Amino acid sequence: MGRPSAKERKPYNLDALLDVAVRVFLERGYDGSSLDQVARAAGITKASIYYHVRSKEELLLRGVSRAFDALYAVLGEPEAKNGPASDRLRYVIRRAAEVIIGNLPEAALLLRVRGNTQVERRILERRRELDHMVSEVFVNAQNEGAIRADIDARLATRLVFGMLNSITEWYRLGGAMSATAIADAAMKIALQGLAAPNGNSAEKRHG
Amino acid sequence: MGRPSAKERKPYNLDALLDVAVRVFLERGYDGSSLDQVARAAGITKASIYYHVRSKEELLLRGVSRAFDALYAVLGEPEAKNGPASDRLRYVIRRAAEVIIGNLPEAALLLRVRGNTQVERRILERRRELDHMVSEVFVNAQNEGAIRADIDARLATRLVFGMLNSITEWYRLGGAMSATAIADAAMKIALQGLAAPNGNSAEKRHG
Repeated sequence: MGRPSAKERKPYNLDALLDVAVRVFLERGYDGSSLDQVARAAGITKASIYYHVRSKEELLLRGVSRAFDALYAVLGEPEAKNGPASDRLRYVIRRAAEVIIGNLPEAALLLRVRGNTQVERRILERRRELDHMVSEVFVNAQNEGAIRADIDARLATRLVFGMLNSITEWYRLGGAMSATAIADAAMKIALQGLAAPNGNSAEKRHG
Repeated sequence: MGRPSAKERKPYNLDALLDVAVRVFLERGYDGSSLDQVARAAGITKASIYYHVRSKEELLLRGVSRAFDALYAVLGEPEAKNGPASDRLRYVIRRAAEVIIGNLPEAALLLRVRGNTQVERRILERRRELDHMVSEVFVNAQNEGAIRADIDARLATRLVFGMLNSITEWYRLGGAMSATAIADAAMKIALQGLAAPNGNSAEKRHG
């Protein structure tokens, strides 16, 4: 198959197609969406979709990977890997909030994956891996005395990321609140909420 | 229509039917569920469903009302209405966490309502009313200096309730963590996270 011309390629652009697919999956649910509906929403033919991806599942995987890859990238950044655990925790929470707000539809879709198909189960498995990596940052911060000892670190991870993930449910782009204000507020509540009473806490070090 | 005998009534019990309907709606999505599927899951006929409710929409409304009514009841309790705003805030957060954990499937269903039908839009409207009432408790606490002034009180409400609501996503009954431990942890993170630096904070008063 020859490459389409620049003009023809515009609507077939994989990124644009993913934008549409993610929107359709969110609106109708992934199970309830068909490639025909994605094609119609994108204003292209189903054959054009097959030029880029092999299946609806691939659209899902590539869609949620935008959020995934950004979150994995955060965990690989030097600030998330080196230095005192309290600084790493602070960094991971702030950057995760930014990534979620920067990839709202993809993050929302990722959080709604239920595991009905093989691709969805693979996605859930990657999500568990990611949760585990994030938990480790919390566990280390607790071991270093940087966060309160009276809450299980894994439970704290779930609660804090529950708060961050909830942003996908209620934040509307172009709303009254800026993305930065929200990321900031979430980080402040989480860090002060987790701070050890007299410890070398992430909030106190910088707050 | 005569009342069925006690034995016959058991499987047709409205509460038992709602349990099943809520489960089916959660598993398949409300849009994707039919009364036939609810009947099959309950092991009764569709006619038996019509003995109790008029429609699928009524099942949804009655199902989510279990969570709603419990949350409204919390806001009507004297501890939520009288006394210092910081105490009221503390009370509302703890009781909301308990209600969510005590009505997990109903709360999860409530949070997934999207507004595709008239009943769903009514539910969303009631949810907004409830959000507003809860926000007022946060706003009052901030006006009394009981919570930090550097985060918009309505944003704080969304983030804290985002954390509480997230429990419906990851908590499994019979898991390693007790419901009380989770409600407790969520309340501690929220109250310490919101505490005013030197204020008469809810956390410090009792913590």
